Amino acid sequence: MNGADILCDTLLHNDVDVCFANPGTSEMHFVAALDRRPQMRCILGLFEGVVTGAADGYARMADKPAATLLHLGPGLANGLANLHNARRANAPVVNIVGDHATQHLKVDAPLTSDIESLARPMSKWVRTTRGADDLSTDAAAAVAAAREGQAGVATLILPADAAWTPVASRRLATARPKAAAAVDAARIGDAARLLRSGKKVLLLLGDAALRAAALEAAAAIAHATGARLMAQQSNRRIERGAGRVALERVIYNIDAAAADLADIDVAILVGAQEPAAFFAYPGKPARPLRPDCLVYALAEPGDALLAALRALADELGCPTGDAGRFHAPLRRPEFADGALDAHSLAGVVGAWLPEGAVVCDESLTAGAHLYAMTAGAPAHDYIQLTGGAIGGGLPMATGAAVACPGRKVVSIQADGSAMYTVQALWTQAREELDVVTVILANRSYAILHHELKNVGATSAGRNAARMFDLRDPSLGWVHLANGMGVEATSVTDTAGLRAALDSAAARRGPFLIEALI
Amino acid sequence: MNGADILCDTLLHNDVDVCFANPGTSEMHFVAALDRRPQMRCILGLFEGVVTGAADGYARMADKPAATLLHLGPGLANGLANLHNARRANAPVVNIVGDHATQHLKVDAPLTSDIESLARPMSKWVRTTRGADDLSTDAAAAVAAAREGQAGVATLILPADAAWTPVASRRLATARPKAAAAVDAARIGDAARLLRSGKKVLLLLGDAALRAAALEAAAAIAHATGARLMAQQSNRRIERGAGRVALERVIYNIDAAAADLADIDVAILVGAQEPAAFFAYPGKPARPLRPDCLVYALAEPGDALLAALRALADELGCPTGDAGRFHAPLRRPEFADGALDAHSLAGVVGAWLPEGAVVCDESLTAGAHLYAMTAGAPAHDYIQLTGGAIGGGLPMATGAAVACPGRKVVSIQADGSAMYTVQALWTQAREELDVVTVILANRSYAILHHELKNVGATSAGRNAARMFDLRDPSLGWVHLANGMGVEATSVTDTAGLRAALDSAAARRGPFLIEALI
Repeated sequence: MNGADILCDTLLHNDVDVCFANPGTSEMHFVAALDRRPQMRCILGLFEGVVTGAADGYARMADKPAATLLHLGPGLANGLANLHNARRANAPVVNIVGDHATQHLKVDAPLTSDIESLARPMSKWVRTTRGADDLSTDAAAAVAAAREGQAGVATLILPADAAWTPVASRRLATARPKAAAAVDAARIGDAARLLRSGKKVLLLLGDAALRAAALEAAAAIAHATGARLMAQQSNRRIERGAGRVALERVIYNIDAAAADLADIDVAILVGAQEPAAFFAYPGKPARPLRPDCLVYALAEPGDALLAALRALADELGCPTGDAGRFHAPLRRPEFADGALDAHSLAGVVGAWLPEGAVVCDESLTAGAHLYAMTAGAPAHDYIQLTGGAIGGGLPMATGAAVACPGRKVVSIQADGSAMYTVQALWTQAREELDVVTVILANRSYAILHHELKNVGATSAGRNAARMFDLRDPSLGWVHLANGMGVEATSVTDTAGLRAALDSAAARRGPFLIEALI
Repeated sequence: MNGADILCDTLLHNDVDVCFANPGTSEMHFVAALDRRPQMRCILGLFEGVVTGAADGYARMADKPAATLLHLGPGLANGLANLHNARRANAPVVNIVGDHATQHLKVDAPLTSDIESLARPMSKWVRTTRGADDLSTDAAAAVAAAREGQAGVATLILPADAAWTPVASRRLATARPKAAAAVDAARIGDAARLLRSGKKVLLLLGDAALRAAALEAAAAIAHATGARLMAQQSNRRIERGAGRVALERVIYNIDAAAADLADIDVAILVGAQEPAAFFAYPGKPARPLRPDCLVYALAEPGDALLAALRALADELGCPTGDAGRFHAPLRRPEFADGALDAHSLAGVVGAWLPEGAVVCDESLTAGAHLYAMTAGAPAHDYIQLTGGAIGGGLPMATGAAVACPGRKVVSIQADGSAMYTVQALWTQAREELDVVTVILANRSYAILHHELKNVGATSAGRNAARMFDLRDPSLGWVHLANGMGVEATSVTDTAGLRAALDSAAARRGPFLIEALI
């Protein structure tokens, strides 16, 4: 038994049994060890952004980490953008990054690079194992780090000699992540006083406060105190739809968000970050809350948020029974036959969305109405781009489908962003994953046209147009999907989209709909 | 005039007039400035790996840097793998990486990350500009750093407020890269003594020593002294073919390379690195040269290599006239009608290659015979994957075509690697670049099957096969190319490949050939 074997066994021992992978020569002993353990499900991505984005989507839906297998510094680098999204989602991921054998680093072979420097910005925990005999301890520490507290990305760097060297002991280390921190009574008391102060209070939720039971406690508090209830703009996962608590999100546009929150005197954060503008603009505020708004962090992401909200409800004497009072009713949007645009497209999706779906949203500008128009659809999970690194959607949908066999994953995807990690479609075909992808084909980085006007240009000249427009040539999504083994169709109106979605609902396995808008 | 304007003007002033780009909101003032300067050619890549790989290919053929425009940490991260290849090629690249406005960093907006930490491993020079009034100096310093000495990657980080703030002065800074270092007479004398010592000498060439004139001087030295002449395994660019000096390369496989170099007593490095195994293997040497081989570095990459080789020839009294003695004759390989394999495919390419072509080689296992079988083709340039980060080929070919209008770029590309940066095909279509891509479709990470056997496995089990094989489903390259606006065909035998290449030669613009091998 070598280091690679004990690494695999330690991962399995600690309930990590899916490995999204794109290996290379320096990982070959690890591959051989995986090959001896069919109970580890190895899933190939044809690009590392698919691997890490799938691990993010998997973690969001499985509530536990997958492993990734990445090839040296460049392989990790290719996966960093989606690790950035995972980090911003507080999604647990355990990266195994191969490196050259220790003694080979000194010859500066072509693939040598500073892996730790690359890993640190997106990882909460980075370690290069010192050798085979440390690997079980290190792997368990990586799993614990990924899971505990504010969950995130743990990166374990595996020199090839640590993988191939025999181990002295077969003893497997157990990950013991610290339990979620309880919120102490003094903080609960402070929050209760703020809620009773007569001021206008915002209860801002993030992280695990967006699961159904926590939302019911939060809704009871809001109902009893008159506080406003909102989710952050971007979140790891929201349990929503009919029969669950309806929840607004902080608005993306900074001016609109500031106007919307202008009357808030006190913001209580429950697993949420204080809202900030996605980007800075000259002369505009960096944060939407008023500068004199009191911001009180009741609990951090990773804390025991459900318990904190229930304790707060108790402290306030809010009745938490009959949660149905706070539930959204089943209400499908109406939609008329006609052309597809951001509004009508969201209407068709809202009218169709099946019970138990996982909606994966990287719809950006063309999906502006999606969240609102699925609010009354049957109960579903909603996962979205968190870190702003586009190219998260297709891989996340892929990983979510791995985590949730038997549920339909509905991937609503902007076209420009989809191209970043288009290789994910192949993995969906390879693994026969039940994902329907709707490409919002506006053939443009539409958000940038809008932003250019924000900086004072009346319209894009040649250079800007050449950087914003995805026409000339237009992307052919049916061809692209077919080239990766995914059936596809193209639609141009609401009836066509509805028919294509019905066709997707009637099948299992990946399907892509190019919606020309 | 704001910081973005003076940044653009400084780039143009210093002969940087191509910008490979994938911008975002934080770069919008820079985009607006580019839009006011149509003399800057802005070329969109639909993924940042395309952007940076194209900048690498452009630099190799234009002998000067392009700029890249990248969006914050994740945009840079997506481009790092091909910056790694550029670094290993000593290819000059000037990255402009946008960041949030300085005062916005403290709010930890979703896209915030440690850009400098990400940039450093692949960059020889990294700087975050302090403000608009420093931008011209900083941009000129970036251009100088990219070009001088061992050329490479310079990364200038551009906070949004530096871009949007008005500048006090319109004065443009001029890049003054240090001149290539001359090799002093003592070193020339040392090298001459080694060459006359009677020992078996290897003259190992890299960097600019692989251009036609330098190779002629090196060939004269080798001819006069009996030294062996070789290029490194991986190089930025080799001028070769009929009418130029024929040149072997160090063999990739470490055992074969060690056997091939077993009689070498002295290695003289001219712009080359001492050879090393690409990967470490248990019980195998890290370097192919004998441990007792004397390694003498006559000149570093970026030094005045042509002058050094001519001085060495003078010192040795080698006649350097009549360079035609050392030239490869025009000799096309024969090929028979039949199935395509690594050998027959290389034969067809060698028999067809047009004069003045730029061959871009990321053929890997399926291209094992390509270098040898194009040795007698008409004069051409040969650029190849340098850093081992796969996904370099399609973008490099794209950038080379931008640098060399009027020349046919021949992109010989392994299928697994092509998927990494497949989006490059769209840029080829958008810019109507004269690139013929031959996809070597073995539908496998073939090298990994081989390497798995090297570590003792007799054959791949399910997990390994699922990570190495690109079948189930097979990629459809004609569909993929068509989906990005590139015409394509699929061939299965030598006659089909030849006919497709002839068709490519008769047209201008991108064309893709899927060669099923």
